Amino acid sequence: MELLSSTKVSGGWLKRYRHESLSVKGDMVFAIFLPAQAENANVPVLYWLSGLTCTDENFSQKAGAFKKAAELGLAIVMPDTSPRGTDYPGEHDSYDFGSAAGFYLNATVAPYSNTYHMYDYVVQELPHLVEEHFPVTDKRSISGHSMGGHGALICSLKNPGRYQSVSAFAPITNPTQCPWGEKAFTGYLGDDRETWKAWDSCELIATAQERLPLLVDQGEADNFLEEQLKPEALEAACEKAGHPLTLRRQPGYDHSYFFISTFIDDHLEHHAKALGLI
Amino acid sequence: MELLSSTKVSGGWLKRYRHESLSVKGDMVFAIFLPAQAENANVPVLYWLSGLTCTDENFSQKAGAFKKAAELGLAIVMPDTSPRGTDYPGEHDSYDFGSAAGFYLNATVAPYSNTYHMYDYVVQELPHLVEEHFPVTDKRSISGHSMGGHGALICSLKNPGRYQSVSAFAPITNPTQCPWGEKAFTGYLGDDRETWKAWDSCELIATAQERLPLLVDQGEADNFLEEQLKPEALEAACEKAGHPLTLRRQPGYDHSYFFISTFIDDHLEHHAKALGLI
Repeated sequence: MELLSSTKVSGGWLKRYRHESLSVKGDMVFAIFLPAQAENANVPVLYWLSGLTCTDENFSQKAGAFKKAAELGLAIVMPDTSPRGTDYPGEHDSYDFGSAAGFYLNATVAPYSNTYHMYDYVVQELPHLVEEHFPVTDKRSISGHSMGGHGALICSLKNPGRYQSVSAFAPITNPTQCPWGEKAFTGYLGDDRETWKAWDSCELIATAQERLPLLVDQGEADNFLEEQLKPEALEAACEKAGHPLTLRRQPGYDHSYFFISTFIDDHLEHHAKALGLI
Repeated sequence: MELLSSTKVSGGWLKRYRHESLSVKGDMVFAIFLPAQAENANVPVLYWLSGLTCTDENFSQKAGAFKKAAELGLAIVMPDTSPRGTDYPGEHDSYDFGSAAGFYLNATVAPYSNTYHMYDYVVQELPHLVEEHFPVTDKRSISGHSMGGHGALICSLKNPGRYQSVSAFAPITNPTQCPWGEKAFTGYLGDDRETWKAWDSCELIATAQERLPLLVDQGEADNFLEEQLKPEALEAACEKAGHPLTLRRQPGYDHSYFFISTFIDDHLEHHAKALGLI
């Protein structure tokens, strides 16, 4: 691991690293916030998955999360949103496919199947690396925004026991049924829609082995609400399966980090409770 | 005034406007955060002056200030850092002079003397506009970062009675004696160093008509500390003049918005007390 920067914030440290990833067969950058408590004890980790167009930096710069995380004694790990080392035809041409749009799945269609294994990276490789090199426990929670909210939901639903808690801001709840998801899943998984279901939270909830409660915030003035995000689909799937869901529709809020910054402390407290910090 | 955007955050609204400025003879953009309290009453205003390379957006996106401002019932006005409508020779060539580097003074050297009147804009025109169009009182405080910290200090020192309180993050305390200031003041004010003194907080403190207490935070790991910022010069000037100064040297912190986000709540509370909010 190569340390790219180290910045003091809220009494703790924000560190950015580059490392060679086996999952994506190339270099990846991630950031970790370590609260002051980590100087004397191992602390639990929240994994934050960002949305389309983001890197590891959007959340650290715009969410205003470190004050509360410092108070709680919670580390936060922020991965990038796709592999970056390749130059496939069209990979960098659109904001919603290819670079910065890895959708937290394992691609099966060439050439993306060679490297776009963000699911393996986020669920297995990155936690393994983090737990080996930093003063953290093996207690994990996961959250994210938009594409990253989808990522947080599927990572927890597919891995019973792996996370203590899960939450999401404006997640793409039902990617098999919206334009962003249809474009990404076609490009990464191919035309057989049956194979898409393994990466759709609304599908996964029906057969989930663990009923971890979902905390979801959704702005009612979000431009992507009806066409892409479909909280009502998540609500219906949870109701049908008896899956616990707290869906908070927030009047007036849009899809931006201003929305996230407004409610991030609630989410951090939700995770801190599940992680035994409060 | 043309409304550019309106975004809900922390229960209040962040609004960006473009308007025609008489001071700078061209269009200017500014942002205002109005807390929910402003729906029912007039609230006091903190003016935030940003540093080199910034626009009105850096503070709103990165400082994490709106949660506390919302709690306190404090509006925050964020101007741009220079006029933008001109294309003078070399105006856009360097990060520390010309566009995004107006230094909150009134230029006297052509062609900058035509439009670079950021001091008049920030002290007179913008408050006049804000107090005419928004639900705010005429109680004002001022703060800023780096070049904007210099701006906050000189605006308050030159205008006794105009601000209830002042604070700064890593201010350029003594611009007549550092490379950033020497370059800017030569370009905007000319070669006669006597004329520079009217825009240097360390000079102004000697003859200040009002002894408004200064709250200053300075990171000890700030790359610009020794060459550009010189907190020891401010300390000496305050000591000599009997001017009240709380200078907090913060170990490990750099010049970034991560430093600002760590201590912004302390500054907002400092201003809220002077403004009668707490």
